Amino acid sequence: MSTFQSLSAADAASLSQQLQARYDAFKARGLKLDMTRGKPSSAQLDLASAMLDLPGAGDFTAADGTDTRNYGGVDGLPEMKVIVAALLETDPANVIVGGNSSLQMMHDTIVRALLHGVPDGTGPWSRGAVKFLCPSPGYDRHFAICEHFGIEMIVVDMDDNGPDLAQVQKLVAADAAIKGMWCVPKYSNPTGITYSDEVVRALASMKTAAPDFRIFWDNAYVVHDLFDTTDPLLNILRVAAEAGHPNRPLVFASTSKISLAGAGIAAMAASSANVADARRHIGIQTIGPDKVNQLRHIRFFKDLAGIRAHMARHAALLRPKFEAVDRVFTQELGGKGIATWTKPRGGYFVSLDTLDGCAADVVRLADAAGVRLTGAGATYPRQKDPRDRNLRMAPSLPPADQVALAMEVVAVCVQLASLRALAK
Amino acid sequence: MSTFQSLSAADAASLSQQLQARYDAFKARGLKLDMTRGKPSSAQLDLASAMLDLPGAGDFTAADGTDTRNYGGVDGLPEMKVIVAALLETDPANVIVGGNSSLQMMHDTIVRALLHGVPDGTGPWSRGAVKFLCPSPGYDRHFAICEHFGIEMIVVDMDDNGPDLAQVQKLVAADAAIKGMWCVPKYSNPTGITYSDEVVRALASMKTAAPDFRIFWDNAYVVHDLFDTTDPLLNILRVAAEAGHPNRPLVFASTSKISLAGAGIAAMAASSANVADARRHIGIQTIGPDKVNQLRHIRFFKDLAGIRAHMARHAALLRPKFEAVDRVFTQELGGKGIATWTKPRGGYFVSLDTLDGCAADVVRLADAAGVRLTGAGATYPRQKDPRDRNLRMAPSLPPADQVALAMEVVAVCVQLASLRALAK
Repeated sequence: MSTFQSLSAADAASLSQQLQARYDAFKARGLKLDMTRGKPSSAQLDLASAMLDLPGAGDFTAADGTDTRNYGGVDGLPEMKVIVAALLETDPANVIVGGNSSLQMMHDTIVRALLHGVPDGTGPWSRGAVKFLCPSPGYDRHFAICEHFGIEMIVVDMDDNGPDLAQVQKLVAADAAIKGMWCVPKYSNPTGITYSDEVVRALASMKTAAPDFRIFWDNAYVVHDLFDTTDPLLNILRVAAEAGHPNRPLVFASTSKISLAGAGIAAMAASSANVADARRHIGIQTIGPDKVNQLRHIRFFKDLAGIRAHMARHAALLRPKFEAVDRVFTQELGGKGIATWTKPRGGYFVSLDTLDGCAADVVRLADAAGVRLTGAGATYPRQKDPRDRNLRMAPSLPPADQVALAMEVVAVCVQLASLRALAK
Repeated sequence: MSTFQSLSAADAASLSQQLQARYDAFKARGLKLDMTRGKPSSAQLDLASAMLDLPGAGDFTAADGTDTRNYGGVDGLPEMKVIVAALLETDPANVIVGGNSSLQMMHDTIVRALLHGVPDGTGPWSRGAVKFLCPSPGYDRHFAICEHFGIEMIVVDMDDNGPDLAQVQKLVAADAAIKGMWCVPKYSNPTGITYSDEVVRALASMKTAAPDFRIFWDNAYVVHDLFDTTDPLLNILRVAAEAGHPNRPLVFASTSKISLAGAGIAAMAASSANVADARRHIGIQTIGPDKVNQLRHIRFFKDLAGIRAHMARHAALLRPKFEAVDRVFTQELGGKGIATWTKPRGGYFVSLDTLDGCAADVVRLADAAGVRLTGAGATYPRQKDPRDRNLRMAPSLPPADQVALAMEVVAVCVQLASLRALAK
């Protein structure tokens, strides 16, 4: 198959007709497919259905004697901290267990920094301009937090190893207003790549103009492998400490996509100074998180091995959906010079890059044919993809056959949009 | 019995000896009693033990079809809003259901106001000085939030009908920096009184210099009656709307002292404008609260009648403890002119006022005799009781006989401290 760029005008016109016919046929079927939702499927949630009657009547006492039903324990049950510490490769003393939302822990961390500042800093961030590096494509809800608080977002390119190091290093060295950086270091949202050792080391050790620079290390997919082997990720807490920047990384995770998306446990891990600082603030905000839900998780998973075994069952459900995406894209788009897409080994998304200027067109075309896609630009700060090419596919929720069908529609839309763009 | 003030020097000396002997006898017993913790007892928590295996395997679908296990629903399940709306006498559309902590909802409301402002306002509160009225004695954690954010606290006296209206009205009319006011309007913490209709109406309708003045109406004890009849409390949302200040009150409540203190459901109720404003911010902070725990509450309580029936069982456990406090205080302190105390008809605390300058002494004496009391001054902003006389007794946690014993120790300490103070 030749690339679209090399087609003669006549061949392009004929291909366009064929594609339009396929597109019209899809349209006539009245499809209603949704590829926007990065949510677990019912089958995945069913894996944890035993949690719905845990911890069980009469079972409310944690190993340390805490009555989980009563007030107290602002930073989590010691047993829960042990599990989180194993998950995030740190010490239980460096863990704070929160409520059900790691997004909330990240949001609240930024709020605390804005109103009070952080260790190594010189007071509330809100006293001056605040900028964050936003490796993009990235997670829209991270960017939404920045936008909400008037934090200027600086786009940094992503490659197969993580954020573009040259860009990052140059920026943070030059501008003390750059206080933070968003990272989804493993099975990145949406590209699915895992940061290389070199990238993690560089981020942990680079020179920053801001003494209180923070990396928001959203390890959302820490055990969310699709295959039997995992993408190794260097432990940034350790590497940063070794590099003399122990307070730089703030690591976040949750069990939302492990146990139940609406009723999981969120946690953060950080240096002792960061943990002490956060605890001081959190103790003003709340008497403590839901400890019964922590005990429920402890009873269900027992330990990190229990979590890993459970995630293998998730992988068995998710893998065919990701394979469907790649199969259809390879078949429909392979070798045509009009699209590249990621083949993640974990996480929740496939990222598709079209030719420049085609993404919004694809979303519009797909929508008209009954396939809802995440809005073009959603993976960039302020929803503005400078090249209008990135699309995020979320294959977890629909059944595999629907994923395949939706991807076929998308592939036809990408081809149609590409032909139009090349004809201009 | 004559008052201590009228005792002759000889009688006072002899009484002091008797009291000292009783005190020493208590001390010799090596007591370890704690009257500081406003927590439900195990017996109270046991009332909700059926919740520990709810909602039950296979039960995860709310009445509106929501799969509570998955993401979404930033402001709560519609069914849960109906229950909260009944509890707070408002419309479900005016309710936001949160996580497990109403303190967190109050804290976060203040954070939002500081960083973004509120409806009727002119921008972030943090742009200028912010002051709050703090009716005192009051709830230490309210005051701690103000202290944490550098909000100046202005003490307002409490009487049997609520905050001193003349003080409040004069202050808020004169100073536009006064942006808020803390209220625990029913079974107030710690005095146990309920605001009179006149007070509620005046607070709802008074003229304030700040156009965006907010009443933080912490209705923590809305159904926490000790007796078969409840203290009626005027609906401030309705009264404020009628007075042309619909956005003034922000009502908070939780099931922490209804279901489980560590695993309850918190909620707020407010005008449509306030709810829309809060929802906009909360949608940036989190994808949503724990809906499975909401479903658990829905299954367990069913409706407001279910909550009321449950609270009657709490009352049966709590009442003897409150009665013990009053019985011992009446017997030991009655008619002596050295102390007054409240006889609350609900809530979690008894407030004891000693002679001026005696509270810290009583805490010290009691502590040395093995009875831990909440620190003197804890019920005032910055832990400073200007008259050093208020003490908060929390009788809920220990068994009734221990409460009685602890109160006897306290009463002896009050008498000893009073004699010393009068002798000065």
